[in-house]
Amino acid sequence: MKEMFKLEIDESSQYDSPNRTPIMRKTENPLLTVADVKPSREDFVVDGIFNCGATKYGEEYILLCRVAESVKCNRDGFVAFPVIVEHKGKSKFEVVVLEKSNHPEYDFSDSRTITKGSDAYRNVVYLTSFSHLRVARSKDGIHFNVDEKPLIMPDPVSECWGMEDPRITCIDRTYYINYTAVSPDGAATALITTNDFKSFERKGLIFLPENKDVAIFPEKINGKFWAFNRPVPRSIGNPDIWLSESEDMVHWGRHRHFYSISDMGWENGRIGGGAPPFRTERGWVKIYHAADKNSRYCLGAFLLDINDPMKIIAKSKTPLIEPEMGYETEGFFGNVVFTCGCIFENDIIKIYYGAADDKICRADITIDDLYRHLSII
Amino acid sequence: MKEMFKLEIDESSQYDSPNRTPIMRKTENPLLTVADVKPSREDFVVDGIFNCGATKYGEEYILLCRVAESVKCNRDGFVAFPVIVEHKGKSKFEVVVLEKSNHPEYDFSDSRTITKGSDAYRNVVYLTSFSHLRVARSKDGIHFNVDEKPLIMPDPVSECWGMEDPRITCIDRTYYINYTAVSPDGAATALITTNDFKSFERKGLIFLPENKDVAIFPEKINGKFWAFNRPVPRSIGNPDIWLSESEDMVHWGRHRHFYSISDMGWENGRIGGGAPPFRTERGWVKIYHAADKNSRYCLGAFLLDINDPMKIIAKSKTPLIEPEMGYETEGFFGNVVFTCGCIFENDIIKIYYGAADDKICRADITIDDLYRHLSII
Repeated sequence: MKEMFKLEIDESSQYDSPNRTPIMRKTENPLLTVADVKPSREDFVVDGIFNCGATKYGEEYILLCRVAESVKCNRDGFVAFPVIVEHKGKSKFEVVVLEKSNHPEYDFSDSRTITKGSDAYRNVVYLTSFSHLRVARSKDGIHFNVDEKPLIMPDPVSECWGMEDPRITCIDRTYYINYTAVSPDGAATALITTNDFKSFERKGLIFLPENKDVAIFPEKINGKFWAFNRPVPRSIGNPDIWLSESEDMVHWGRHRHFYSISDMGWENGRIGGGAPPFRTERGWVKIYHAADKNSRYCLGAFLLDINDPMKIIAKSKTPLIEPEMGYETEGFFGNVVFTCGCIFENDIIKIYYGAADDKICRADITIDDLYRHLSII
Repeated sequence: MKEMFKLEIDESSQYDSPNRTPIMRKTENPLLTVADVKPSREDFVVDGIFNCGATKYGEEYILLCRVAESVKCNRDGFVAFPVIVEHKGKSKFEVVVLEKSNHPEYDFSDSRTITKGSDAYRNVVYLTSFSHLRVARSKDGIHFNVDEKPLIMPDPVSECWGMEDPRITCIDRTYYINYTAVSPDGAATALITTNDFKSFERKGLIFLPENKDVAIFPEKINGKFWAFNRPVPRSIGNPDIWLSESEDMVHWGRHRHFYSISDMGWENGRIGGGAPPFRTERGWVKIYHAADKNSRYCLGAFLLDINDPMKIIAKSKTPLIEPEMGYETEGFFGNVVFTCGCIFENDIIKIYYGAADDKICRADITIDDLYRHLSII
């Protein structure tokens, strides 16, 4: 289906087991946990800090983190959760309190969502937690301080249920930040830009619902911007990865199907964009996530032709990282490693990843080890 | 939510019942049926000609029709259907034959689709008919001749399951034709352009799956092209109408939610874009379709602010057209009126519409009668 390129495999690989990737988790993991985050309001409780975009701003390491909060509610038979509403032209947090017995039509059995309807047309009517974006800063890339306040107040229409899973792409000193904008109308993708991580410009929704896992390339290819994205169609098709083009980062088209879930056990459930790709001497490297049918999330990698990212040179046959450590297997939602950003410097890929949907960790791999890990597909 | 404008209602309306719209169905209806269409191949059978885009090309009326075909298959226990495959660099029709007993995992009970999986994750694995686009031409807008061959061969990747529901928008003598491109990867929206209805230029997929019912405005508004579209998210949200902007018709962004299904019985199931809007002295008029929970499809209309189509001035409270005539209630899929195009000339809106998913009909209404039909919402 896709044109293949020959990848030169180093036969003198020092690793006895080619399936055992020399990934180096930081001994300081987890780098950030809920204990490091101040809630947005006194009546809120932080459920997790995870799934962060990553970049360098000057000499500083910046993580733009997803922070999920819920509302303390100790009354039996009641559930409370935050939403964003418009108040005098501005956004403000508000708490919705539902008495369960008043809503026999709702299903409260999932701790993350409140749903309605049968299996065939089950609709999410509320989320039980609200995610916003928070900046964390570091000088060494390991020890981070989390800002006291959210980076930006969510839009009261398109983000009234939250902002999730930010990715950062820096082009010509402008930082393009895309993230999942959640509302009762669906999970879409929004774009903002900044030059200083203080002031921001909103660029609107760049992908319609349902579309998450958008990862933008850090330079133009053949005169166009390119982005991975992962639409979720309802009647025909699967949650697959697509590639789209743009001339201005705001308007996207020429969409093409890129990669499906595979028969390999670790990626036969869902697959999605992961971190923005970065340039290497052998092609674009893209770290992505994949889940099996039990929602166990692993990370893998693609190596793509430098002039045409639709051409896959090689990819992971086995997971690059899979949930193994206690901080990855246990948490708000266990058995998850999920990345929104990595930093490639000095031939080392520094992968920042969310662990079990409530912590931020880091694992490193040298670029040569990554090449050895990849298989020609 | 939306800013409202006051619509001047003509109190001297001549109609006793304001709910009874003076819609004029043509006595020649249906204008086109399967008997008017030559199959693409001898072993194909035409199931329907319906859901057509409509435009004027010089003095000629052009309908770009959806023609659905299936394969004659008289063997018990077998089902046969057409798909498009790539052959020596070109597209060609091919027939897939399935022996039902070899596929116990498939559900063959729906005459339109073959599905797999449980209700929660039911996936369409094949369509039982294949739709392509066919031109019909007329001098009077009533008597049409259907071309003998498809207008354009479907793309073997993004359209291997068919091309459906075309809409035509003419801007500066270029005809922009968008349609639903169906493949196992989903139902997306593709764009082609023509200046002569002979040669065409492909512009790729302009909306990712699942997104149908795209209707493009016939002129720029505030320097941008605008289009209605109808994404279908899986986990959160409904099949609602959105508005998107573009600078070049190929790349689309700044997506905004426009209108949801309502509590009114005739539009509480699905709602979608219908025909491209047209300019009137009171604002943009857009004919749309809506279905109730029993999939009974009616047509309604919006009146929108001429400088900001997000502002709804008025809309149908009752259906503009609903399935009443035998040719609308009976057919391949009964109780459907569905439009992809209308022509506004001499103060008359000529609505071409698909009836019961197998015929093309026309109904007219004067613009003044339409204004009287609309209600301030």
